[in-house]
Formats: sequence, C-alpha cells, structure tokens
Amino acid sequence: MSENRNIKVTIQYDGRNYHGWQVQANALTVQQVFQDAVEKITGQRSDVKGCSRTDSGVHANMYVLNFKTASKIPAEKLKLAFNHYLPQDIAVKEICDTDYDFHARYCCTGKEYVYKIWNGNTRNPFLNQLALQYNRTLDETLLNKCASDFLGTHDFSAFCSVGSSVIDNVRTVSSARVVRNGDLVEFYVSADGFLYNMVRIMVGTLLGISEGKIPHDGIKDIINSKDRSYAGITSKPDGLYLNRVFYDNI
Amino acid sequence: MSENRNIKVTIQYDGRNYHGWQVQANALTVQQVFQDAVEKITGQRSDVKGCSRTDSGVHANMYVLNFKTASKIPAEKLKLAFNHYLPQDIAVKEICDTDYDFHARYCCTGKEYVYKIWNGNTRNPFLNQLALQYNRTLDETLLNKCASDFLGTHDFSAFCSVGSSVIDNVRTVSSARVVRNGDLVEFYVSADGFLYNMVRIMVGTLLGISEGKIPHDGIKDIINSKDRSYAGITSKPDGLYLNRVFYDNI
Repeated sequence: MSENRNIKVTIQYDGRNYHGWQVQANALTVQQVFQDAVEKITGQRSDVKGCSRTDSGVHANMYVLNFKTASKIPAEKLKLAFNHYLPQDIAVKEICDTDYDFHARYCCTGKEYVYKIWNGNTRNPFLNQLALQYNRTLDETLLNKCASDFLGTHDFSAFCSVGSSVIDNVRTVSSARVVRNGDLVEFYVSADGFLYNMVRIMVGTLLGISEGKIPHDGIKDIINSKDRSYAGITSKPDGLYLNRVFYDNI
Repeated sequence: MSENRNIKVTIQYDGRNYHGWQVQANALTVQQVFQDAVEKITGQRSDVKGCSRTDSGVHANMYVLNFKTASKIPAEKLKLAFNHYLPQDIAVKEICDTDYDFHARYCCTGKEYVYKIWNGNTRNPFLNQLALQYNRTLDETLLNKCASDFLGTHDFSAFCSVGSSVIDNVRTVSSARVVRNGDLVEFYVSADGFLYNMVRIMVGTLLGISEGKIPHDGIKDIINSKDRSYAGITSKPDGLYLNRVFYDNI
C-alpha cells in the first residue's frame, strides 16, 4: 500500500503528563502517544511530524502535526477515532487531508506562544503546573512597554539556552505584549521562529525587570550583548503554551 | 493547654485527587489532608469542621472550615504555614480568629454551587474532570428559563439521591441561572441548603430537557411528584464546584 494521503491534524494538549513532544527512550511524550494512536487506528506505524519540539511540561492550545498513510478512513471519522483512543489530556480539534508536500515543521511560517502567570496573593489550585504561580507585584503596563523592545529582527543569542545546536540565531519578533485579566498576567509573543528556551528566558528577563535586577530599558542592551548571562533566568515550563501556529496559504 | 482559639479558614481546592471532604478509611480526603497539616503546624491533632460534605471528585472555589487550637501562632503565619504544607491542589485563601462559638457547618446560612459544562465540539484537555464535557447542543436561554422553576421553597425529594438519611427535604432556592461564556455553560444555584446530590440531579434534569426527554415545563411537576424517578440522571461530579458559602454577620 502506498502512503498516498497526507493528513494534517490540529491538537490541543495539557503537557503536565508528558516529557514534551519528541519521542524519547523511557519517557512518555506526545509524539509517542500520537504515533501509538495512528497505529491502532490505521494499522500502520506512520512517522508523525510535529510543528515544534516542546519542552517537558509545556502545553499547547494549538499544535499542528502531519503523517502519511494508506488508510482510507475519511478525515471526519479519523477525528472521532483519535479522540476516542487518545488520553483525555490530548484533544484533536481539526483533521484534514492536505497537500502531499505539507510538512508541519518545514512549512510553518510563524508561531505564537503565551506564558501565563498567576499573580494572586495565594496560589490557584486549579492552575497547578498550568501557570507560573508568582505572588510579587507585577506592573503589566510597565512590562508591556518593556516587552516591545523584543520587537523586530535581532540575533537573539542572549535569549537562547546554552547547548542549542542552532547556528543562525536571528529571528523576527512580530508581536510581544503583556496583558492582565484579574490575577492572571499573560505574555504573548509571535515570531517566525523561536530559539531553545527563548520564551522562557524572555519571561525570566521581564520578571528580572519587575524585581529590579535588570533596568527598565535593559532588553535592547541584552539583545545587543548576544550573551546569555545578561538575560534573566529561564522561567519554569509550567506557564508556557504554544498558542498558535501559522502557515502560508492554509 | 486549653484550646482557646477558634480558627476559621477559607480554602479552595481541585477535588480530582480526593474522595470528597470527609475522612474515610483507605481513601484520601481533603479533611484528612487538612487535619494532618494542622497537626504538623500546631503539634496538636484538632478536629476540623467543614461547611459541607462534598462528594468524591467535587471541587471548591470557596470552602470554609474551622478548628480549635491552643497554638499561639498568629493567623497570618498560620496562612503561610498551611500553604507551605498543603499539597498544590489545595490553597488557603483566608485565615482568621473567629468567635469561639463559630461552627463552619451549623452557622452556614446558605451556599452557592456552580456546575460547569464544556460545550465545545471536542473535549477541552485542560478541563479534564474539571467540567462535564458535553458536545450536544445546549440552548442556554431555554435552560435559564427552565432553571427558574427551581426557585422558591419546595420539598426537593425528587432531587435527592436514594439513601440519604435527611428527614426534612424542604429547601429554599434563592437563585438559579444558566449562563454561557463561549463554549463554557455554567449553572449557578444558591439555596439555604442542599440535599444529597441535589445539584447534580438538577443538572441531569436540565440536560434531560435539552435532550427532549423531559418537557420544557416539567420541573414544577417533578418537584410536586417528590419522586426521584421523574427527575433526570445524576450528572457526573466533574463539573461541580462549591462556589460560595454564606454566614450571617461575618
């Protein structure tokens, strides 16, 4: 049987139980769980391509993947089958036949992440590992202003964890804003791509500004330094969600 | 040491890991966990009184308890200590010294519950066991109108699970409304007290109306019948939250 169909799947998942997306030996990952479901449903083991590696404990409001298959099961039935076989913390939101050349990672033209901070006096038991629980004062107006210094095309080496194998650290940030909704403070950032731990270091830097460890106008200097040691800490994965994934023409 | 202080505590908890409030042999309960924390912090085992028994898997946005102690630790330090020792799915929101006669259950004059229904096309992985996941059409305007038939003072025997030992089944419902916020439909109900499984049977009845199994104007007849078999099913505990607890003068 030739794998003549290319299936594009949009999922949403709570990452608390997973060691990120990518298959690992001896650790449960979303890719592993999804590939197992594909095999159960289609009878074939397909190689599932994801739009992004996500770290252990990171969540996704929207995550796109694709796989090729010879299965003749219609897309709408595949959706029902996946939602039946997948665990409750992963949901298939949309599934469709797409161009044979579509690749969830290589065709991706941009992504938006959101980092959620619970800024109440006491922790929110319903957001355990679903938000950073942080009870020091946060001035969202100040942080929103500072976040605008991330905008534009820059070498973001200062916002990349050591150990990354990526060579070109230039990325274009098209949107970066901090909003408050009651006790929930959210940092939204969109770019054509993200370096390893980039959003978590951006958040650590904003918290460093809030705590007076980094000057209000420090982000531009940190970017220019290209030196990881000048940026803030890598904040916990708890609050990080891949929020949107962009493709051209689809 | 005489237990000369009466401590009132307002907590919030995610009930997924607990077999309800009340201590049970061989099952983890919120009361058990709280009593263990009291003993760890004060060095004394106190009898902790809760405002309500809640079923296994039910949550609380607000739950009030009290305990008597000889401890001299100030209330604000107790709050920090409890939030340190309690698991992440329970949070102490408020703690204060109260009248020696205050009893969380006997002094309670009313409660509000909310039942959350995720009414999206596909499940919400972040609300697993935190809402009823229900994908059939719900008309919140119709259901809100029907819910108003719960208002007033009635014998709610038809909305009480068999096996309850309560003798007087008359309760006064002061508020009952259905609201939609996007894909989330919520049923809010306040009363001076609730019978065993009363809110879950009310919700099962509203869903029965929505599914055409019970007529739109059926709630009054069901109340009048005093017969459990005429009401809808007992809906799952997943979506149920004790939302507010009322006391006179405090």
